[in-house]
Amino acid sequence: MINELIKQIKAKNAPIVVGLDPTMKLIPECVKKEAFAKCGETLEGAAEAIWQYNKAILDAVYDLVPAIKPQIAMYEQFGIPGLAAFHKTVEYCKEKGLVVIGDIKRGDIGSTSEAYAVGHLGQVQIGNSFCRGFDEDFVTVNPYLGSDGVKPFTKICKEEKKGIFVLVKTSNPSSGEFQDRLIDGKPLYQLVGEQVKAWGDECMPETGAYSYVGAVVGATYPEQGKLLRKVMPNTFILVPGYGAQGGKGADLVHFFNEDGLGAIINSSRGIIAAYQQEKYKEFGEEGYAQAARAAVIDMREDIAQALANR
Amino acid sequence: MINELIKQIKAKNAPIVVGLDPTMKLIPECVKKEAFAKCGETLEGAAEAIWQYNKAILDAVYDLVPAIKPQIAMYEQFGIPGLAAFHKTVEYCKEKGLVVIGDIKRGDIGSTSEAYAVGHLGQVQIGNSFCRGFDEDFVTVNPYLGSDGVKPFTKICKEEKKGIFVLVKTSNPSSGEFQDRLIDGKPLYQLVGEQVKAWGDECMPETGAYSYVGAVVGATYPEQGKLLRKVMPNTFILVPGYGAQGGKGADLVHFFNEDGLGAIINSSRGIIAAYQQEKYKEFGEEGYAQAARAAVIDMREDIAQALANR
Repeated sequence: MINELIKQIKAKNAPIVVGLDPTMKLIPECVKKEAFAKCGETLEGAAEAIWQYNKAILDAVYDLVPAIKPQIAMYEQFGIPGLAAFHKTVEYCKEKGLVVIGDIKRGDIGSTSEAYAVGHLGQVQIGNSFCRGFDEDFVTVNPYLGSDGVKPFTKICKEEKKGIFVLVKTSNPSSGEFQDRLIDGKPLYQLVGEQVKAWGDECMPETGAYSYVGAVVGATYPEQGKLLRKVMPNTFILVPGYGAQGGKGADLVHFFNEDGLGAIINSSRGIIAAYQQEKYKEFGEEGYAQAARAAVIDMREDIAQALANR
Repeated sequence: MINELIKQIKAKNAPIVVGLDPTMKLIPECVKKEAFAKCGETLEGAAEAIWQYNKAILDAVYDLVPAIKPQIAMYEQFGIPGLAAFHKTVEYCKEKGLVVIGDIKRGDIGSTSEAYAVGHLGQVQIGNSFCRGFDEDFVTVNPYLGSDGVKPFTKICKEEKKGIFVLVKTSNPSSGEFQDRLIDGKPLYQLVGEQVKAWGDECMPETGAYSYVGAVVGATYPEQGKLLRKVMPNTFILVPGYGAQGGKGADLVHFFNEDGLGAIINSSRGIIAAYQQEKYKEFGEEGYAQAARAAVIDMREDIAQALANR
């Protein structure tokens, strides 16, 4: 699946992933109004609004981007109906030929991590049958529990030729609280990065330069990105924090390798709620999907420029 | 809710939480057979088996224990039907007057952690309505992202008078890989423990000695538990790893304070699949719920003995 991701990045000339993180504040009034009229101001109503919003955005951007990253928390907050909308979104992305990165940030002790891995990337045995729960292509994983929290995921990745992105240096302001602390002279995130490289070395596809084990490194920390790029040469880096969180195209160049690959930049609000920005006001609220398309094109240009100028 | 937990621990004289972590290997054949006959060897069939199994165990132990800890991964692996069984289990526990600790180990950047907090402990706004997604009493939280990943949970805890348990030192063999590394001479888990204390100091209930912010420290690491008990005097410690993972009653005494409180010990497989053990063989497969009851009584006795002998 890492090779499929790379193939699509090259074909679409866009190392971009759209974060589908729908919240009630981002969804246009017109979409909510229709959903609430149908299902009420209920969990089901919220899930319906999310689904209609996602579908319109996917229809507007699927030919431009290689991958979509739905943030499961934004669905989980609406309980079972919300999670059903997540599942439906994953399925629709795949129908549209898009690679799906489930931003789930799971991680637990061995057998429990295995359950997450099976539910999100693999198939679970029920009697003599095998069934798939959510079936994303990639998921994000939290490393705090160490190797036996991560290896159940890499095992399933090898079986299914799927992938993970392990949290190394996150984009949020307080990420340094633990991640930047020095251990034998090296920050914790570097130590985690070294482990990500080691886990990845055991998970290389038959062909290609990048392993099934990727990393998450925030756009908001370009200097750390530069270091981690060297520590993990065969690791694809998922870079959140572009746009709304403050990361800019010029900050991103160090996340890429010389081959122009090795990183995929996420934008969520900056794309899906572009219609709320002054810059895309002309589209109006009802033109939210076309505003998202325009924002993807601008983002692609910003990153291409930055890479051309490096 | 921390005071409700303490009240029930005292009333039932049992600092015990039963981990409801149903897997297909733990559920008796007779339960699976009936569920598969009804719903097939499907996600729905698995969810039905889980629900029947959980319900029988809850009916058999609810008067003995203060709290139940369903591990969401074991449900999530069965997709939406599995998560619906999780939700149904949470609701049934509350009907039975039990405190519910959702073992979800979530944690993300600010706004995303807020979505998890709202979905699992609080209420989410939909138009002019407020709805509850999963509505547990406590959840477990992963601290790798630092304060802005944890504080959205503590905010909701204060509003709802609910609680969290933050992962400090986990019970698994490789937990030391990152958690034990020394930072300015102190292991990372101690640093996290100090933060847990600080977060908890801002989250004390109106009465009582324990904060809304608890910690997870594995029974398999008694020495670290001893240290962390001192670092976090007002923190309730959730202790997994008893029984199947190797922790024994005598290892647990240091997790408790002088008041006999401050810790709650989890056992999962050791209780819910007691019928598979030589010791409880007499109950037979069909007596799995009564075997669970007998295992709870033995566990209560083991811990009471250990506390009496300290």
